[in-house]
Amino acid sequence: MIAKIGVLNISDRASAGVYEDTPGKACVALLREWLATPFDTDYKIIPDERILIAAELRRMADQAGCCLVVTTGGTGPAPRDVTPEATRDVIEKELPGFGELMRATSLKFVPTAILSRQLAGTRGRTLIVNLPGRPKAIRENLEAVFPAIPYCIDLIGGPRLETNEAAMKAFRPRNA
Amino acid sequence: MIAKIGVLNISDRASAGVYEDTPGKACVALLREWLATPFDTDYKIIPDERILIAAELRRMADQAGCCLVVTTGGTGPAPRDVTPEATRDVIEKELPGFGELMRATSLKFVPTAILSRQLAGTRGRTLIVNLPGRPKAIRENLEAVFPAIPYCIDLIGGPRLETNEAAMKAFRPRNA
Amino acid sequence: MIAKIGVLNISDRASAGVYEDTPGKACVALLREWLATPFDTDYKIIPDERILIAAELRRMADQAGCCLVVTTGGTGPAPRDVTPEATRDVIEKELPGFGELMRATSLKFVPTAILSRQLAGTRGRTLIVNLPGRPKAIRENLEAVFPAIPYCIDLIGGPRLETNEAAMKAFRPRNA
Repeated sequence: MIAKIGVLNISDRASAGVYEDTPGKACVALLREWLATPFDTDYKIIPDERILIAAELRRMADQAGCCLVVTTGGTGPAPRDVTPEATRDVIEKELPGFGELMRATSLKFVPTAILSRQLAGTRGRTLIVNLPGRPKAIRENLEAVFPAIPYCIDLIGGPRLETNEAAMKAFRPRNA
Repeated sequence: MIAKIGVLNISDRASAGVYEDTPGKACVALLREWLATPFDTDYKIIPDERILIAAELRRMADQAGCCLVVTTGGTGPAPRDVTPEATRDVIEKELPGFGELMRATSLKFVPTAILSRQLAGTRGRTLIVNLPGRPKAIRENLEAVFPAIPYCIDLIGGPRLETNEAAMKAFRPRNA
Repeated sequence: MIAKIGVLNISDRASAGVYEDTPGKACVALLREWLATPFDTDYKIIPDERILIAAELRRMADQAGCCLVVTTGGTGPAPRDVTPEATRDVIEKELPGFGELMRATSLKFVPTAILSRQLAGTRGRTLIVNLPGRPKAIRENLEAVFPAIPYCIDLIGGPRLETNEAAMKAFRPRNA
């Protein structure tokens, strides 16, 4: 069975067609660039609604069987930003190191990185990772945490993902 | 309407008059130094009581309409340190990046920085930030996170705060 | 009364006798190397069962009167990794700076450091710290946070621990 990766763009304006879906496309482009293992994407654009986001994350994890789901947008302090809340509603184990590293990485570029509430966690055999909304920040953030993602997916019983070593080196402990 | 900033010194000894209120004064001095926008302060000294702290934070946010509230003290592991608990009681969205950056900053000076449980979060149109109790540490911590504060207040619908650029540069993303 | 330190190795395989208990032994060796104050260890190996871990942590804190409990193992994202959950079940105050610093330290060695969910917190007069499972990582992690541990134990009313300054420098703020 081919690996499946969910890409969920969370944005009122993109879902209404006002904005082009550049964040979602940026994610897919990075995954295509970095992963050597073939995979299908499960791709959706939805508004910033906690219940919708949680439902979509559950569907991508439980029905679609995605080993990885990346979300874009909705992680700031504004009233409509509810992606972290929706993510926390569905994950079983939170992995605080992802948010810590993504914020530390963004801090090298902008002091407002501390306003991001991005988190990550697992739900069954699915790893869910919140990413920012701007393509440049998406690359910076996903690049920082991606080396740990294939091994994380091994640990939760997902498919073995191999990377294109020239573009992205995944790390697996030697005796694992 | 003039901007309002709450300064809440949380200390059994300062509230009993045993200690001088240097932490609260240090906060006001820094805000006066850094902010170009005129503002009023809502200033209180209270003991380390979770219910009192939470009530005071709610009043400063909901009744007084402060766009920013900074607390000092009560963030360590000692039995009377309950500022983070009281803050978590009242915030709606936690912003973990503030605590992470403040601890990382203090770690450059003292290894005991990891004992601080400082956090930050929003309640409606108010940003609440826990600071340490010692004036030197207050400056180090607030200096680290302050560049992100005016934009955070923009995002939650508060007044536009401008800084004295020579003393403190606030950052706002270009297309925001 | 002599100080007591709990060492809890959490591992299905070690508790079944399949693996040697190197993580637990590594902790004791480090504590013997670093601490000048004499102490007794309360030493246990148990499987990755949330209820058992929580019960053992409670016993070490409440009945045995340990001022410090270090756990090894069970902090990753795998289904059997439940040490952070069990720890959170029993602590009263979480100290997020410990996990942040331990992950940042491990990140210098392996990108998969972000998969660790290690945390620390206090329960009454006991400080509980989650450590990784591999002896090399245990040393790296405990070395990073140990300078803050004696002062933390002071603050929660435990015994005064002195270190062998040549091997490990504890830090106590001057006016504390």
